Amino acid sequence: MRPSRTASGRATGSPDPVPHQRRRTITVSLPDIEFTSADHVVQEIRDMNVKGGSPFGRAAAWAHRWVAREPGLETLDALRDRTADIARQMSNLKPTMATIANVNTLVSEALHTCDGPDEAREVIEALTARIIDHSYRAVAEVTRVAAELIPDGGTVLMHSYSSTLVDSYQAAFDAGKRFSVVCTESRPLRESLNAVRLLREMGCEDVRFVTDAAMAESVKTADIVVLGADSLSVDGSVANKIGSFPVALAARHYDVPVYVLSELFKYDARTAQGGAIALEKRDPDEVLARDDERFVEGMTVINQFFDLTPANLIRGLVTENGVIPPALVSTHWNVLREELLA
Amino acid sequence: MRPSRTASGRATGSPDPVPHQRRRTITVSLPDIEFTSADHVVQEIRDMNVKGGSPFGRAAAWAHRWVAREPGLETLDALRDRTADIARQMSNLKPTMATIANVNTLVSEALHTCDGPDEAREVIEALTARIIDHSYRAVAEVTRVAAELIPDGGTVLMHSYSSTLVDSYQAAFDAGKRFSVVCTESRPLRESLNAVRLLREMGCEDVRFVTDAAMAESVKTADIVVLGADSLSVDGSVANKIGSFPVALAARHYDVPVYVLSELFKYDARTAQGGAIALEKRDPDEVLARDDERFVEGMTVINQFFDLTPANLIRGLVTENGVIPPALVSTHWNVLREELLA
Repeated sequence: MRPSRTASGRATGSPDPVPHQRRRTITVSLPDIEFTSADHVVQEIRDMNVKGGSPFGRAAAWAHRWVAREPGLETLDALRDRTADIARQMSNLKPTMATIANVNTLVSEALHTCDGPDEAREVIEALTARIIDHSYRAVAEVTRVAAELIPDGGTVLMHSYSSTLVDSYQAAFDAGKRFSVVCTESRPLRESLNAVRLLREMGCEDVRFVTDAAMAESVKTADIVVLGADSLSVDGSVANKIGSFPVALAARHYDVPVYVLSELFKYDARTAQGGAIALEKRDPDEVLARDDERFVEGMTVINQFFDLTPANLIRGLVTENGVIPPALVSTHWNVLREELLA
Repeated sequence: MRPSRTASGRATGSPDPVPHQRRRTITVSLPDIEFTSADHVVQEIRDMNVKGGSPFGRAAAWAHRWVAREPGLETLDALRDRTADIARQMSNLKPTMATIANVNTLVSEALHTCDGPDEAREVIEALTARIIDHSYRAVAEVTRVAAELIPDGGTVLMHSYSSTLVDSYQAAFDAGKRFSVVCTESRPLRESLNAVRLLREMGCEDVRFVTDAAMAESVKTADIVVLGADSLSVDGSVANKIGSFPVALAARHYDVPVYVLSELFKYDARTAQGGAIALEKRDPDEVLARDDERFVEGMTVINQFFDLTPANLIRGLVTENGVIPPALVSTHWNVLREELLA
């Protein structure tokens, strides 16, 4: 579920800010993985080679592109059935991943406007190209804006890992900024060690590693807290790695601003229908150490892997449209949705 | 620094509540360790065989008792010098332990009222007996009151370990109450695994183990949060294992009451002179795992081991005088101090 550096999906050919007007000319950037079929996409998701909300969304778009290119789907119904089948397979693998659900929904909606298979193929081809292209541009823009927020000579506290965040550090560092970073351990899985390694590689001199429990004692040494996001809710609350919520509570206590980095495509449109973001639990073995065995008998180990940070604890959501109040996410999503479907 | 079950110092012979009136009759309960000399006490502290604030205080009292019994200290000055020497040794080993500092201060104050070595010996003998006896009775009373607070059929969330807390669970369980307990992992050292084991041994059926980062997601399932204490500050803030403070922040968010279990003797009288409780850091190796080595180069690992929970996040301090508002701790301490010195 967590992004890795290799699957970070940097926009290689589209460094420009996202234009807000409807785009007619589409340039699809290099894919995160060179998918060769819709089934290949499903397999790569199943094999966990796709990681991070943005790469998941782009992969789902590629799956639908490949469906549109499959031979033998000679009627609109056949194409729709196959599209629904691939959508279901991806949703079943990652039921809580908003980016996949969004792609599936947009493709399904677009298909409903088509009268024949050839038109449908064209529509899917264009829509998925727009989705993929937008995602790369959006992430690049989030990175650019976040780099502006990083205070020269200051201290950033982060929790868990976000490739967008690390890219932002790199952009800030390349721009001559020097800063300290406090990384909370982010158990289980301790994704923050990835960030530590990459920060050290880019030459960041002061990288501090603290336990998750030290979040409150650590956040008072920070000028800013930055977090990634897994899903965005209609009320502006953000699902992210477990621990993000108490980090934000501690930040409020010390009046340290919290920023969440996320392309708008991570918005979970299902929450606007009253649904809640499902906060997955994972395998208890991720929490346990080998010599815990003797304690474990009869103990229930809960590996709560995500939590939900309320909007009122977040100073700003850093999106491709700039820094926005979290509660405005659905307004921005609706504009983006219309752009993508146009 | 953390209490262990074996050094929990249960009051074996004094189950009665602490009488609030000045006590003339003193019964010294069985010591946590059968100390044989002042130097033996110092050695046991150095060897970390004494664990937990209450056992530290009683051990310090025993050290001074044994000084009073040492042969060869024939003048008041010789006795004072030796007392100061032992006090200094214990303080150097545990500079932030309020119970040791309190014993040293009370003994020093009492000695100043004496005119000769024989009177001094008597005064020290009586004072240390009162201190030791009071500590056992106090812990027993804290246990009794805390057991009342545990909700029958409810859920308790605890962080780290406290022998007093586990004794309270046992008292509540013996009284027929059944309850669930959520134990946060409490890294580093994960002391909560001790509580898990003991809860399971006493027959508690629902013991849940969660990561520290899951404190916020977990606390909303709890009816009450209970914590131990390492030191109490004049403003009512409580030093305890790292993570206690963000647990209390999360509890406030969900309006779950937080109770801290502590005998009054953990009050750090130095804070009334403007001093702050020193929040010790410990060895970074406690935070790291073996395969972290490759990440560690140039990374600063901070093992912040204690944090300070502000008084306004604590519903009540469970003391030998019952549940008191944390900010009244110095008022109660002053009464206790006069009782002990009388």
